[in-house]
Formats: sequence, C-alpha cells, structure tokens
Amino acid sequence: MDLYFSPLACSLATRISLYEAGTSAHFIAVDGKTKQTEDGSSFLDINPLGLVPVLRTDEAELLTENAAILQYIADRYPEAELAPRCGFAVRELQKWLSFIGTELHKALFAPLLDKTAPEPVRAYSLAKAPSRLAVLERHLQSRDYLLDRFSVADAYLFAVLNWSFVTPIKLSEWPTVHAYYKRLTERPSIARALHEEAELYKAEQAHPQPTASPLR
Amino acid sequence: MDLYFSPLACSLATRISLYEAGTSAHFIAVDGKTKQTEDGSSFLDINPLGLVPVLRTDEAELLTENAAILQYIADRYPEAELAPRCGFAVRELQKWLSFIGTELHKALFAPLLDKTAPEPVRAYSLAKAPSRLAVLERHLQSRDYLLDRFSVADAYLFAVLNWSFVTPIKLSEWPTVHAYYKRLTERPSIARALHEEAELYKAEQAHPQPTASPLR
Repeated sequence: MDLYFSPLACSLATRISLYEAGTSAHFIAVDGKTKQTEDGSSFLDINPLGLVPVLRTDEAELLTENAAILQYIADRYPEAELAPRCGFAVRELQKWLSFIGTELHKALFAPLLDKTAPEPVRAYSLAKAPSRLAVLERHLQSRDYLLDRFSVADAYLFAVLNWSFVTPIKLSEWPTVHAYYKRLTERPSIARALHEEAELYKAEQAHPQPTASPLR
Repeated sequence: MDLYFSPLACSLATRISLYEAGTSAHFIAVDGKTKQTEDGSSFLDINPLGLVPVLRTDEAELLTENAAILQYIADRYPEAELAPRCGFAVRELQKWLSFIGTELHKALFAPLLDKTAPEPVRAYSLAKAPSRLAVLERHLQSRDYLLDRFSVADAYLFAVLNWSFVTPIKLSEWPTVHAYYKRLTERPSIARALHEEAELYKAEQAHPQPTASPLR
C-alpha cells in the first residue's frame, strides 16, 4: 500500500490510523509547492488537483479524499476497531468525517493555511471558528472521543486541530477541545506519527527548494 | 422520518434520493435567514450551526451532514440501489460524496452563494472552479453517472451544480458536466423534486419576510 502524503497535511490522519492498526505503508512524500514526489515524478499525474492524501491499495486502486481513505483503512484492518461496523454509529462516524472535512478543514482552516489567500479571505474563514469549534466543545464535554471509542474521525480531527498553532485560532479558548487535543498527543500512534512528520516538516522548511505547506 | 430542508439548498439531494426510493418524508421548511422552521420553532435548537439538511429518523435519531444522511437513506431503502453495498465501489461513493462536499460545496459554491461574502472571498472561491469542474469533466466523459449507475452522489452533485445558475460559473464551459446536469433534470425523481422546491423557493422570494438563500 502506498500513501502519498505531505508532512503535517491532513494525510497525517491516515498515518495515525495505520499505526493504530499496527501496520504501515510505503509513504511517498509530495512537495506541496512543486507537486513533485520524492522520487522526482509529477504528483499531478496521480491527482490532478495536487491534493494529498492519495492511497494506492495493494490491488493498485487509487483512492482520494480523506473520508474515503480513512473508512477504507478502518475496513481493511477491522481488528483495530477504528470505525463502527453497523448500526447508527456508522452514520455518526460519517457525520463527523463530513463535518471535519467541510466545516473545519475546507471552510475554516484551508484558507488560513494558504499563504496566497488575501486578508479578507482569511478574515471570512476565521469568523467561522467560534461556531464550528463550539460544536466540538459541546460534544466533547461528556466524552473522550467523537464516538464511544477512538476512531479514524479522531485521527482526522487531530490532524486538523494541529494546524491551529500556525493560524490565529487560539485553541485554548475552547478548553475541552484543547484538552482533547493534548490528550491525543499522548496516544502512542499519534505521538509517533506527529514526531515523524514534524521532523520531515522541519527538514522541508530548512530545504532551499520550494517547500511544502501544511495546506491541503 | 422528518427532513429539515430549505428550498434548493443541498437538502434537495435527500428529497431526490427519497423520491428515487419511491418514498417521502415529513418535510419541514427552514427559513435560511431567520432560522425559523415553518411551525415557528427555532431551527438552531435542532442544529446550532443552522445548516440543513437535518434528518430525524423514525427512531428519533437526529443526523446532520449530507454525506451521512445520503448514505443513511441508501442503506434504509436498499431496494432502490442508491449506493453500492460492498467492495471498492463503496469507497468510490465515499470519495465522490467527500469531493462534492469539500471541493465543490464548501470551497467553491458556498462563498459564491453567500450574499454577505466580500468580493475578494468570491474571487478566491471562483478561481477554484476550473480545476474542480475539470475533474468532473474528465470523469463524466466516459460514463453517465459518477459510479456505474445513479447513486446518492449524483443526487448531491445535481443539487450543487444547480446553484451554478445563480453564480458567475458558466456550466456550459464544461460541456460534459452541462450535458450530465441536463440529462439529470429529465430523471423523474429530480424533475419532481426540482419543480417542487423551485416553487417553494419562488414563494419564499416573493414573501415580505427575510427569505431563505440557497447557501447552506
């Protein structure tokens, strides 16, 4: 299995999920600016939008979109119990994956992480932060995870909340969400994935070539 | 089953899917500006973000997020075959639901439909149109639907493409996508749902009270 990723991009959620399942993948780094893969080929031939993650399965199927990839991983490694398998809980998982992808990732964080976005665009997105983070603050007050146990939705939410530290969003203003984030950093799969990708990110930033941005 | 909707909002996809399944729901209109439901209660008590659709199942479970609701409907009425039930095609469905929700709905259309969005925000979103619509143009060149047959993803895509006519996006510049849209308007479930919601939308626009916008 190949995972096209960029350090600290939302592809981090897939790495976390793989580690949760006690497995790994052939990780292929993509430069966020040049859209070149680390082996020198063009990532745009893989995904014309240039967005990570892209997963190539062992059957050579290419899959894009975080929500789909994460549900694939959960299904591929059922013993890791990374997603509910039946009942209304499946819809709850899909609800959270969609909320994170639409309301947090695309509507709130993506423009804030885009260094080319003009100031009115950043302000427009930032204005959505209180209502969106309030949804999480309320939900997490009575639970440790988005569902009854850790799931791929938590992996995705962690990857997105991790961007707040390079945006004007002050996570500490949502103490329950902040505590959730901090608690997750101590989870072995997340600690490992975060450490590895932070090192790769630092190396990219220090590199004289155009470097990757965490925006995907 | 109750469906909270606003005329021509993305909740249209759920109505289409219900009609495809030969069924219906108790439809409850939500005013997009006042966030009041047609029975005079506050929709913010149902969904604090004020976003439709919200589905209340026969078991009184509340579900938000289009991707989750549409997969629920497909699962609830399996005889309608509105979603693949096994294999990689399930991931393909989830990929398209995510692509429509993130890249089209939230990143491209939502700011264009928001009358309060400043011009730089609209321009920033509009710049994403060529690459995102090109994905559809390429994909639909060799097929009639997003998957091998009509699915809830087509219902969602139709609801989103239908917004193009009130934005600067000229769908005719993507002839394959335009032909797909026009073909879908002739589908009985879609023709019926579109006619009904267009009438409701017109009635809202003519109403002296603050009226709903198709933005969700």
